[in-house]
Amino acid sequence: MNVPTFTVSTEDVLARFTHIRKQTLALCAGLSGEDLQVQSMPDASPGKWHLAHTTWFFEQFVLGHDPAYRSPNPEWHYLFNSYYESVGPMHARPQRGLLSRPTLDDIRNYRTRVDEMVSERLVRGVDATLAARIELGLHHEQQHQELLLTDIKHALWCNPLRPAYRQAPVKSESRSVSMRFLPGRQGPLDIGHDGDGFAYDNETPRHTTWLPAHALANRLVTNAEYLAFVRDGGYQEAGLWLSDGWATVQRDGWQHPLYWQEDLSSEFTLAGVRALDPHAPVCHISYFEADAFARWAGARLPTEAEWEDAAARLPINGNFQDNMRFHPNAVPPGEGLLQMYGDVWEWTASPYVSYPGFKPLPGALGEYNGKFMNGQWVLRGGSCATPRDHIRASYRNFFPPHARWQFAGIRLGQDR
Amino acid sequence: MNVPTFTVSTEDVLARFTHIRKQTLALCAGLSGEDLQVQSMPDASPGKWHLAHTTWFFEQFVLGHDPAYRSPNPEWHYLFNSYYESVGPMHARPQRGLLSRPTLDDIRNYRTRVDEMVSERLVRGVDATLAARIELGLHHEQQHQELLLTDIKHALWCNPLRPAYRQAPVKSESRSVSMRFLPGRQGPLDIGHDGDGFAYDNETPRHTTWLPAHALANRLVTNAEYLAFVRDGGYQEAGLWLSDGWATVQRDGWQHPLYWQEDLSSEFTLAGVRALDPHAPVCHISYFEADAFARWAGARLPTEAEWEDAAARLPINGNFQDNMRFHPNAVPPGEGLLQMYGDVWEWTASPYVSYPGFKPLPGALGEYNGKFMNGQWVLRGGSCATPRDHIRASYRNFFPPHARWQFAGIRLGQDR
Amino acid sequence: MNVPTFTVSTEDVLARFTHIRKQTLALCAGLSGEDLQVQSMPDASPGKWHLAHTTWFFEQFVLGHDPAYRSPNPEWHYLFNSYYESVGPMHARPQRGLLSRPTLDDIRNYRTRVDEMVSERLVRGVDATLAARIELGLHHEQQHQELLLTDIKHALWCNPLRPAYRQAPVKSESRSVSMRFLPGRQGPLDIGHDGDGFAYDNETPRHTTWLPAHALANRLVTNAEYLAFVRDGGYQEAGLWLSDGWATVQRDGWQHPLYWQEDLSSEFTLAGVRALDPHAPVCHISYFEADAFARWAGARLPTEAEWEDAAARLPINGNFQDNMRFHPNAVPPGEGLLQMYGDVWEWTASPYVSYPGFKPLPGALGEYNGKFMNGQWVLRGGSCATPRDHIRASYRNFFPPHARWQFAGIRLGQDR
Amino acid sequence: MNVPTFTVSTEDVLARFTHIRKQTLALCAGLSGEDLQVQSMPDASPGKWHLAHTTWFFEQFVLGHDPAYRSPNPEWHYLFNSYYESVGPMHARPQRGLLSRPTLDDIRNYRTRVDEMVSERLVRGVDATLAARIELGLHHEQQHQELLLTDIKHALWCNPLRPAYRQAPVKSESRSVSMRFLPGRQGPLDIGHDGDGFAYDNETPRHTTWLPAHALANRLVTNAEYLAFVRDGGYQEAGLWLSDGWATVQRDGWQHPLYWQEDLSSEFTLAGVRALDPHAPVCHISYFEADAFARWAGARLPTEAEWEDAAARLPINGNFQDNMRFHPNAVPPGEGLLQMYGDVWEWTASPYVSYPGFKPLPGALGEYNGKFMNGQWVLRGGSCATPRDHIRASYRNFFPPHARWQFAGIRLGQDR
Repeated sequence: MNVPTFTVSTEDVLARFTHIRKQTLALCAGLSGEDLQVQSMPDASPGKWHLAHTTWFFEQFVLGHDPAYRSPNPEWHYLFNSYYESVGPMHARPQRGLLSRPTLDDIRNYRTRVDEMVSERLVRGVDATLAARIELGLHHEQQHQELLLTDIKHALWCNPLRPAYRQAPVKSESRSVSMRFLPGRQGPLDIGHDGDGFAYDNETPRHTTWLPAHALANRLVTNAEYLAFVRDGGYQEAGLWLSDGWATVQRDGWQHPLYWQEDLSSEFTLAGVRALDPHAPVCHISYFEADAFARWAGARLPTEAEWEDAAARLPINGNFQDNMRFHPNAVPPGEGLLQMYGDVWEWTASPYVSYPGFKPLPGALGEYNGKFMNGQWVLRGGSCATPRDHIRASYRNFFPPHARWQFAGIRLGQDR
Repeated sequence: MNVPTFTVSTEDVLARFTHIRKQTLALCAGLSGEDLQVQSMPDASPGKWHLAHTTWFFEQFVLGHDPAYRSPNPEWHYLFNSYYESVGPMHARPQRGLLSRPTLDDIRNYRTRVDEMVSERLVRGVDATLAARIELGLHHEQQHQELLLTDIKHALWCNPLRPAYRQAPVKSESRSVSMRFLPGRQGPLDIGHDGDGFAYDNETPRHTTWLPAHALANRLVTNAEYLAFVRDGGYQEAGLWLSDGWATVQRDGWQHPLYWQEDLSSEFTLAGVRALDPHAPVCHISYFEADAFARWAGARLPTEAEWEDAAARLPINGNFQDNMRFHPNAVPPGEGLLQMYGDVWEWTASPYVSYPGFKPLPGALGEYNGKFMNGQWVLRGGSCATPRDHIRASYRNFFPPHARWQFAGIRLGQDR
Repeated sequence: MNVPTFTVSTEDVLARFTHIRKQTLALCAGLSGEDLQVQSMPDASPGKWHLAHTTWFFEQFVLGHDPAYRSPNPEWHYLFNSYYESVGPMHARPQRGLLSRPTLDDIRNYRTRVDEMVSERLVRGVDATLAARIELGLHHEQQHQELLLTDIKHALWCNPLRPAYRQAPVKSESRSVSMRFLPGRQGPLDIGHDGDGFAYDNETPRHTTWLPAHALANRLVTNAEYLAFVRDGGYQEAGLWLSDGWATVQRDGWQHPLYWQEDLSSEFTLAGVRALDPHAPVCHISYFEADAFARWAGARLPTEAEWEDAAARLPINGNFQDNMRFHPNAVPPGEGLLQMYGDVWEWTASPYVSYPGFKPLPGALGEYNGKFMNGQWVLRGGSCATPRDHIRASYRNFFPPHARWQFAGIRLGQDR
Repeated sequence: MNVPTFTVSTEDVLARFTHIRKQTLALCAGLSGEDLQVQSMPDASPGKWHLAHTTWFFEQFVLGHDPAYRSPNPEWHYLFNSYYESVGPMHARPQRGLLSRPTLDDIRNYRTRVDEMVSERLVRGVDATLAARIELGLHHEQQHQELLLTDIKHALWCNPLRPAYRQAPVKSESRSVSMRFLPGRQGPLDIGHDGDGFAYDNETPRHTTWLPAHALANRLVTNAEYLAFVRDGGYQEAGLWLSDGWATVQRDGWQHPLYWQEDLSSEFTLAGVRALDPHAPVCHISYFEADAFARWAGARLPTEAEWEDAAARLPINGNFQDNMRFHPNAVPPGEGLLQMYGDVWEWTASPYVSYPGFKPLPGALGEYNGKFMNGQWVLRGGSCATPRDHIRASYRNFFPPHARWQFAGIRLGQDR
């Protein structure tokens, strides 16, 4: 099996394994078994399912790598396989919320047991293949940490009581920073993973692409700017929207971003309903809304190549999950491209397709990314729910154009 | 307000109140907050919701009868109102399973608080109107006890692990009892509640109806008999079915009763998967199936008037919730009409409509029964999930013709 | 085969056959092949399909009665069988509008050919069984004449141009007639077909039922009366509606009868959009609306037995298809029960179920009526689209409670 | 208004106008008003609607360019506007099949009247803007000629009689031609319309892109090759499919191309059911199927840039609508890239998005292409239903990945 391998010390991996697995549980602190049972829509999963599925991933692809391994709960395989058709059939996704058994306690024990066995394997020493699979499992776990946060946010929002996940300090007052467009590089340029450290298969191979003359906005679009679009009748003007977007606006009655309240001055956050910070990045919008806003603003969304070429030369700093704030921050003053990492995922004008010469991972792990290359758009840069050590310039996230429950926002681009 | 009043001692009511409210909680013993969170289909409700809604009923219609009453949780009113349009809007039924808050603990406290206040009212003394409302609340609670059991059964069945609600002793061997048809009375006869004790409004007024020459089977249809229908191709023969029933069979792929396993020799019960007892009554079938079976058997279903006229002369004995077996029993040997009460609700050939001269209760309580008089069929006699003191000869239960998750079975009737 | 037989002369049958078959085509005069191709909803059928299906009925059940008969178009059997499962599979109902072939000309030729062969059989002489089947085919044809009119009305109404089927003279001014309640008979009374002439199986057997003390309104509810209900907020008041009715009102946005325009002063008719006649009977309403109106008016709908017992003593006069007006008329002044026959079908409070001792016709013709005995309500009396010689006191029409495209209205009843 | 202008003589335009408008009617020869009334699915339109809509396009954008123009049928505007939101609301697409009025004769007269007025304008002389709009209208008409053919094919196929549109001579025997991969050019290359003659806005601007090392198959994939995929279990193997594709296969029960019969040896064509020619190109497949086949074959689909760079150096020859065969032909022997134009549209690996610097046409005509840039894939090269003078190397057709009713097939590509 040719999962890309790279040299890491077993000790480092064990430390990372321990840390990341604990962090997932830490994100559940304060949530009851009932909270973690709820599945608020087919796109979301119960928190409990996330806890089990990420554990199953290690059991299936790390422990199960040893042909002698026997799972103590073989009947759970069916329940916690997400979409790996090549390892067998699976429980229907929209019905994950019906699984009251195994209980949260059962699943916590499952995590402990698998963690012990994986740790033991690590202590005994693992070869490069297994190390790479463990690394993949950890990145997989981090993706589910973010989904756990966005799914629980959606579930709590569906409750008319609008309960908070966690209290958070009210932010000090924020200030406005002017939007400016900074020119990007033009001509043949290489993008994609450069081979240094972990990457998903969909970031490879590194390859040449041609960048046209263009510029990127120095910061994210703010709530105040998006509110101007709303107030200008943006949601009533068909001409601003893609045809599918307009149909969605009409059918679902969209009038503003997902978690804004009807007063257009407050929004639901993981800390409950809060006043809208005019200078914070607009968040929880779909590709359709990002695209319509850009058209209204006389601009466009950046392509993923434009974004990556710029981001690759910046340090990975920003407002990440590690801050435990779970909400985007108003931009701090600064020069150059700001907020490229963290805060909100940035919708790009690039459909999610394969890079030239793309080869998915062999076997079941090849189902991780490649089979989703239809009908989705690429997002870049990570969010306030992404762990800092999970993101990189070449990282390609992807969601369908109507998806709004992720921490997704807008950076504008321009032709030059 | 003219809820029918009847003389009961306050002490009796208090004892009943205490007993019935405790029994609801007793039925939840062994179920986790997660189990009680699940809503497996729009027709079902989470166990937690049943606990809260029955409490809300007392708060709304008993405590709230006092204009000075102030609910400590006025925002829960919206969540736990089921369908009483005249007391305000309500949470959408299919989304009851999304309410992880209030938590199970919150709701247990809510029960305690309301129980204390109602008990206090009872000790202080209540007038006939309030006594009648408390009585109605207790019957309402008992209905929800049955729904709690059928809803949790459905939820556990949706789990591929098919977990048991509670272990139960395996039944001793059962024996066959021949089916015989016993003639009923003919001519003008009165049915409906005769004014002695509690009844729902839909059982009134007592009125004359005309019974044709007919007979009723001495016992319920058994699993063995129903299996013969299945094996004879009953589910493949359009001519046996009502048109809507045949469409349902085709669309939903019905091949056997709801909880039978594909091997046709075992079934899911509240004690987990068990061998099918050939002599036990067939259970968890729809009106469509009951009707098709009767046609196949060259018989018909009894009308509710035929059933009631016969039942009214029998003592109320049978296999009820009180047995804590939660599954129908094979018929014990005996003379006359057997199994008329308990075991399974018996589908009748009577659509659920009002009796001549029917007047619903005034105010919001008038929404209890009357507004459902469309598209449903009457069932009679109670089941193994019904409390013994909840049922009576005039009791009219009703469900749509496709509903299968109730403990519902078949008694045959005949023209004479 | 035991279709009820009765003595008729061959000459009479031939004359009726010729007349009724011609009348179906006469109703299509002025409609193009395109008009007759349209299927505006799954409940409706294209006019062309009605022309073919009624012909298929004679081919299948009359010509096909001769085992030597060979259809020249055996492949049409599949297309024009409506719902007779026992004679083979059939084209899916919602896709009848896709059949551009056979063409209208082909189907006209098909009618001619079958008509000739049936006429020839009649001239040669038929036995009682065949005579009864021909009679059944003629009544069947007359039912489809009414459906052809209601289906084309719906199709034309779906066209934003709101084209007329046929021009009609504007009615002279109508006058108001007071509504009075006339007492009905009480006690054990017989209803059902009395054996004199043709009847469908669902009208049999004649049997005893018990009529409570009651009264019937002397005339139908008018547009003016229904408008008062609309203006009084009838469509906004949940308490007036059955639960399923209220759900339908909310989901489909009902605010007034089907063909009323939003101005509440005009309506779409088969003669195009016309001013609403305040004194004409309200029409094109569902059972849900009839029931809600009755509740609002402090009355109820009559049962079918109450209606039949009264109607059986009246002559069959009224505004029928024969008038070629295709719209209900304001009531003329008069004594006693007015408008019992014709104008609009009258919704009753009786679910459509079998009479005690009901036996469906044997064989495929047994699918005509019996299998629809679920979820529908009985209507009585015929309409302005019913041929006068098609109706009788014992005639039971039936539709689901939400159906509005038939000429259906309201007569009020009362308990006494 | 800046529709791209280009020099053409008025005489040439008039001749083309006359020819193309007549050709649309010629394609309807032999179809009845009933055939042209049918809408077999929401994606398709009735033939009659195509006749009207293309005429409306000239009325709206050419005649209506004159502010003094008054339409004689202003109420038809609503009916025949397809999706131009900026010129007003429109009839719901799935209900186009309900419009029996205006009749086919009305619409033929409408065509005649508008043709006369446009011709008169042309004879009087038109400026460059109007000439460009007429040219756009003619290309628009040609697109609808192809849709008319694919829509009528689908409608006739929905009829269980499987009637032919037109008889066609049976093809002489075909022979096999080996598939070979021919290398394409690599590096920075320009694609997009080069400014010579008419083009849609979505083909502009011409711009630089980077082509990786690659090769294209010399011919289209044949029925025999696709049949091998089917027989190898291609439709049962999840691993070959995109996730959305696999879901579609499961949900819709796909087992073979749209118009193949279950025997896998015959197919429905516009000439009725015919034997499958093993050497003819496979046709009527979706993007999902093309992509799965390519994966099974160890190849991939070409990108649109790879295709265009190769095609731009070839003459536009092939099996087009002009042949009046309306079915793809087996490849004739030859060197180099064969079948690049005509026969079947070729699915590419390129999502349909804008070119760098894309500007839609101003005003309502800007809705022609740009607003559909989501969720669709590009097809290239034209088909046997495309007029020869409608296609060019830079032409971008686009359909959603599940669409199968177009004449669409597969050319394989390879990385080098």
